[in-house]
Amino acid sequence: MSDKIEGRNPVAEAIKSGRQIDKIYVRRGDKQGSIIPLIREAKRRGIIVSEVDASKLNEMSETGNHQGVIAQVPPMDYAEVDDILKIAEERGEPPFIVILDRIADPHNLGSVIRTANCAGVHGVIISRHDSAPVTAVAAKASAGAVEFTPVARVNNLARTIDDLKKKGIWVTGADAAGDRSLYEADLAGPVAIVIGSEGEGISRLVAEKCDFLVKIPMRGNVNSLNASVAAALMIYEAAKKRV
Amino acid sequence: MSDKIEGRNPVAEAIKSGRQIDKIYVRRGDKQGSIIPLIREAKRRGIIVSEVDASKLNEMSETGNHQGVIAQVPPMDYAEVDDILKIAEERGEPPFIVILDRIADPHNLGSVIRTANCAGVHGVIISRHDSAPVTAVAAKASAGAVEFTPVARVNNLARTIDDLKKKGIWVTGADAAGDRSLYEADLAGPVAIVIGSEGEGISRLVAEKCDFLVKIPMRGNVNSLNASVAAALMIYEAAKKRV
Repeated sequence: MSDKIEGRNPVAEAIKSGRQIDKIYVRRGDKQGSIIPLIREAKRRGIIVSEVDASKLNEMSETGNHQGVIAQVPPMDYAEVDDILKIAEERGEPPFIVILDRIADPHNLGSVIRTANCAGVHGVIISRHDSAPVTAVAAKASAGAVEFTPVARVNNLARTIDDLKKKGIWVTGADAAGDRSLYEADLAGPVAIVIGSEGEGISRLVAEKCDFLVKIPMRGNVNSLNASVAAALMIYEAAKKRV
Repeated sequence: MSDKIEGRNPVAEAIKSGRQIDKIYVRRGDKQGSIIPLIREAKRRGIIVSEVDASKLNEMSETGNHQGVIAQVPPMDYAEVDDILKIAEERGEPPFIVILDRIADPHNLGSVIRTANCAGVHGVIISRHDSAPVTAVAAKASAGAVEFTPVARVNNLARTIDDLKKKGIWVTGADAAGDRSLYEADLAGPVAIVIGSEGEGISRLVAEKCDFLVKIPMRGNVNSLNASVAAALMIYEAAKKRV
């Protein structure tokens, strides 16, 4: 059982992160551009690099966009919620967490993990059921961020939120029915931001567990933002207040 | 020659907007959920609704995700830059424009148009060359926003930026080499926000034309945000300052 990482940037990020890589497959005769330093760095770290025909790569690919390189790695190593809290502690920062409630699109999942990494989030929590797992497609959309930002999968988001609240973390959900604007919310200090599914938003049970719900101002004809965009606005607003 | 709009929400938005629709194809026997009011509204407006087999819809589909409904419409009706300025004038607001420099991914293009609509942007300008046009895939990713937010295609972005500057519009680019943070930038008043391509950012010539370049704070291991996410952070920061 193994997973794949596909594409030049994601594979280069995986090598850089020191993650265990079983083998890297590159397209035969492909010796141009950004693949050269990638192969050099892989060999320097003792990773086996194997040249294969383009047809073989196409067959292996899950994303359909491997850019001539696929790395075979042990399955995604999910973190525990406690690992995320430990990172915050080690950095001497109040916990900064993103919780995803039933995000089904792996592109959105990957994009949120990428944004979370860029904003200094300590980790992402997803539900084990009704959510896209961290597939090769999600890893690629994350631009390699899954190698650095831990992702925890939990059975029961509502219970996890209760646990976080007991530890003094304020849980804020993005919801069109929120009673205050994103910009009025207090997102400094220990915070977990909850983003709901693409079609339906945050589930009722999870919304009830949130300390407060905030809405993103909407001034157009379309009545919702893409889930990864809504997440980015929430995450960066909190990041700004944590400087 | 005609274009297609695919999926329940995008087709419903197109009907609502009053855009000319030649014909709507729905999956034979599909008479459940959100398709019912869609068919009713289309018929009320005198639009021909034709039932076809699922295989026929699959064949017609460009997005591969038609959700049982495809509308056939006249080709995308691009606006002129002056149309966008006129909308600002009509609303009595300083111009609020988004300029996309070589965005190649139609999902990103659609997502930016959606965010622009939600934030009250008056219009989006793209270059005719090296950019994804507004395809069915982009229209779907926009969640119907292309029906409301005008998109202008220009031959020469640098010249268009010169024209906008002559009209008193401040042109701000998002660039990692920016000399100030997004949050320090003055984005109130008449403003055009420039977002560069997914891989390479803003082209040199366009960057030189910008009044200033701002950077989005980065605190992680991955060194860039998804283009549609970067656009959203810029757009919403400007929107906030325009209240």
